[in-house]
Amino acid sequence: MALIVQKYGGTSMGNPERIRNVARRIRHWQSQGNQMIIVVSAMSGETNRLLSLAKEISPNPNARELDVIASTGEQVTIGLLSIALEEQGVKAKSYTGSQVRILTDDAFTKARILSIDDAPIRKDLDDGYVVVVAGFQGVDENGNITTLGRGGSDTTGVALAAALSADECQIYTDVDGVYTTDPRIVPEARRLDRITFEEMLEMASQGSKVLQIRSVEFAGKYRVKLRVLSSFEDETNQGPGTLITFEDDKNMEEPIISGIAFNRDEAKLTVLGVPDRPGIAYQILGPIADANIDVDMIIQNVGHDGTTDFSFTVPRSEYARTISILEDQVKQHIGAREIVGDTHIAKVSAVGVGMRSHPGVASKMFRTLAEEGINLQMISTSEIKIAVVIDEKYLELAVRVLHKAFGLDQA
Amino acid sequence: MALIVQKYGGTSMGNPERIRNVARRIRHWQSQGNQMIIVVSAMSGETNRLLSLAKEISPNPNARELDVIASTGEQVTIGLLSIALEEQGVKAKSYTGSQVRILTDDAFTKARILSIDDAPIRKDLDDGYVVVVAGFQGVDENGNITTLGRGGSDTTGVALAAALSADECQIYTDVDGVYTTDPRIVPEARRLDRITFEEMLEMASQGSKVLQIRSVEFAGKYRVKLRVLSSFEDETNQGPGTLITFEDDKNMEEPIISGIAFNRDEAKLTVLGVPDRPGIAYQILGPIADANIDVDMIIQNVGHDGTTDFSFTVPRSEYARTISILEDQVKQHIGAREIVGDTHIAKVSAVGVGMRSHPGVASKMFRTLAEEGINLQMISTSEIKIAVVIDEKYLELAVRVLHKAFGLDQA
Repeated sequence: MALIVQKYGGTSMGNPERIRNVARRIRHWQSQGNQMIIVVSAMSGETNRLLSLAKEISPNPNARELDVIASTGEQVTIGLLSIALEEQGVKAKSYTGSQVRILTDDAFTKARILSIDDAPIRKDLDDGYVVVVAGFQGVDENGNITTLGRGGSDTTGVALAAALSADECQIYTDVDGVYTTDPRIVPEARRLDRITFEEMLEMASQGSKVLQIRSVEFAGKYRVKLRVLSSFEDETNQGPGTLITFEDDKNMEEPIISGIAFNRDEAKLTVLGVPDRPGIAYQILGPIADANIDVDMIIQNVGHDGTTDFSFTVPRSEYARTISILEDQVKQHIGAREIVGDTHIAKVSAVGVGMRSHPGVASKMFRTLAEEGINLQMISTSEIKIAVVIDEKYLELAVRVLHKAFGLDQA
Repeated sequence: MALIVQKYGGTSMGNPERIRNVARRIRHWQSQGNQMIIVVSAMSGETNRLLSLAKEISPNPNARELDVIASTGEQVTIGLLSIALEEQGVKAKSYTGSQVRILTDDAFTKARILSIDDAPIRKDLDDGYVVVVAGFQGVDENGNITTLGRGGSDTTGVALAAALSADECQIYTDVDGVYTTDPRIVPEARRLDRITFEEMLEMASQGSKVLQIRSVEFAGKYRVKLRVLSSFEDETNQGPGTLITFEDDKNMEEPIISGIAFNRDEAKLTVLGVPDRPGIAYQILGPIADANIDVDMIIQNVGHDGTTDFSFTVPRSEYARTISILEDQVKQHIGAREIVGDTHIAKVSAVGVGMRSHPGVASKMFRTLAEEGINLQMISTSEIKIAVVIDEKYLELAVRVLHKAFGLDQA
């Protein structure tokens, strides 16, 4: 008998018919002798509807009260799913975040989980109940309702799996696993049976949005076995999805590269003629951070003649704001020569733990792109990733040739 | 400085604009130096929407889970109203039923309030907060969410007023008070400045639906000063509404009759030729009660020749079911001769504590109706009410002539 945590997103909870389908799937898993804990999101669109109501009343609504409102979305779906389970003859019991209780800090709208009381859940499981828990929410030590921020239901699932030492945490989405790249661009893209946590982090942050990145970090930290599965497959004919593993679990014969990730929602900025002295990076990026703009890639090359050039990327939607911050607050202040930028860029990354022991990956990547005449505007590497910024018009071409060059189309 | 509890219904919470209006009203009351506790219902239509979702999944949904779902309606409005108050510069803090905490029994969907913890509310009030509490809901001793049943927000308001010894509990509705009768039938109907609790109970159960009857009983029991006011009047020009008082508060010069109530949603049934022996009433009404059908008036006259006739009224929507229960389970069993019934009836009542000391009220009522040729099918009296059942086609006429006969059109 295994203890399984399953998490279902808003699309799976989208209407009564889909909720009934989810209940059937849970019944199937329970009938195989498993103990089941289910984490659900709000019905798709509901959280936005609720937040819009609040925004209609105040452009800058009180965060504590926003959480009171937003948390109702999952409270509705735990009730609906429990009713659907009972209707199918499965004993079920719902819990809000504060009932579990999922204790968080008091950072309303982006709270962090501190602890989970597993005793009542264990008792219900032993009594034969399926336990249905509201994702995305918790309670602080003063009894205030908190939410974990967007995508927080994944985190709730992983946290419950960690607290109860579940055998597996299954995240059901509208895709049947993690792919070597986006199948809409490369039809030969293959579902990965396994991917390491670190690769998953790189894939996710590079734009392969299957799992909330925070939940992956959390799963890695607590060694939770995480699996991505499709909620649209028939429960009696479910594929294996993609298992997110620890690196040590991977066997020696793993391919070097696991996938090609990409992101076309970034813009690049370069500060030209920056005096090459300590503290410059902070003076450039400090005002950007103060404006709450996420910076992704940061590149600074060795300088010459006492100056250097400093480049970084930001979400494309923040491009105009970033330019004006650099012009108004940074350029004069640090004595830079010029600010230039480009929104027509894309980032392409090759990701894989295998590259650590294979030094030829970068050169293979660069050669492949060069053969297509694709110029590299920026390059950034980590232990398990090589990312390049290119002209966005070459994005699809670059992804296709890299996918093929690294043999990802081969089973 | 007074402590005021205000309760706003679903219509007052119907959209962001109305919620802002309610916030303005509360700010006005607070600016007069009052401490304010606000109880709100769900946005109009929301509770029905939520219950329909559950019914789509199961025709007979689990009651515990129904309460989990239904309670979210008020959780949304406490958040929205608190945001609206903060937006207007008023410090506000919301509480769900379980946060207050409003402890109830575990009778899901129709729970009864057992106790209220007033300590956190008092502290917030002392700190200058307006406290916004979700109506209609509570929590049982095991932490399960409960609801109080339809209209339960009135009860929450009264219960909070009782627990905190509030100076007044104000119920805001879409009318500006309790009237001598329905102004749509009698244009001369007047708003009553005061009405006793007992009269209010009779008026409410007779169909003048302004307040939930349970909240009136509750207010009477705990001596809460209850006032009905309109939420659609401007807060700076608010009328006095109707104060619901204890009888001792009324002065000697009160009119004999306070109002004419009526109900056209009932049907009458008569069991003819019932053996006149002990236990017959129970044998007739037992199966009706078992089927959860509410019985209102019950009449049994003295018998003759060893048999009698037994009449009662039920909601018109239950007429067919009641007839078949009587035919199938009662008639043969008790040896009655015949079951007859009529759905084309209406009940008209004269209500007033003054009638206790004025024995001529009944005869005046009967004479007034007789002069219009209106036949009385059933008569039932209490200490402060005389109710008659008549052909429904005479309802408006009866209400008008009685309203005039008892001088209710005179200020």
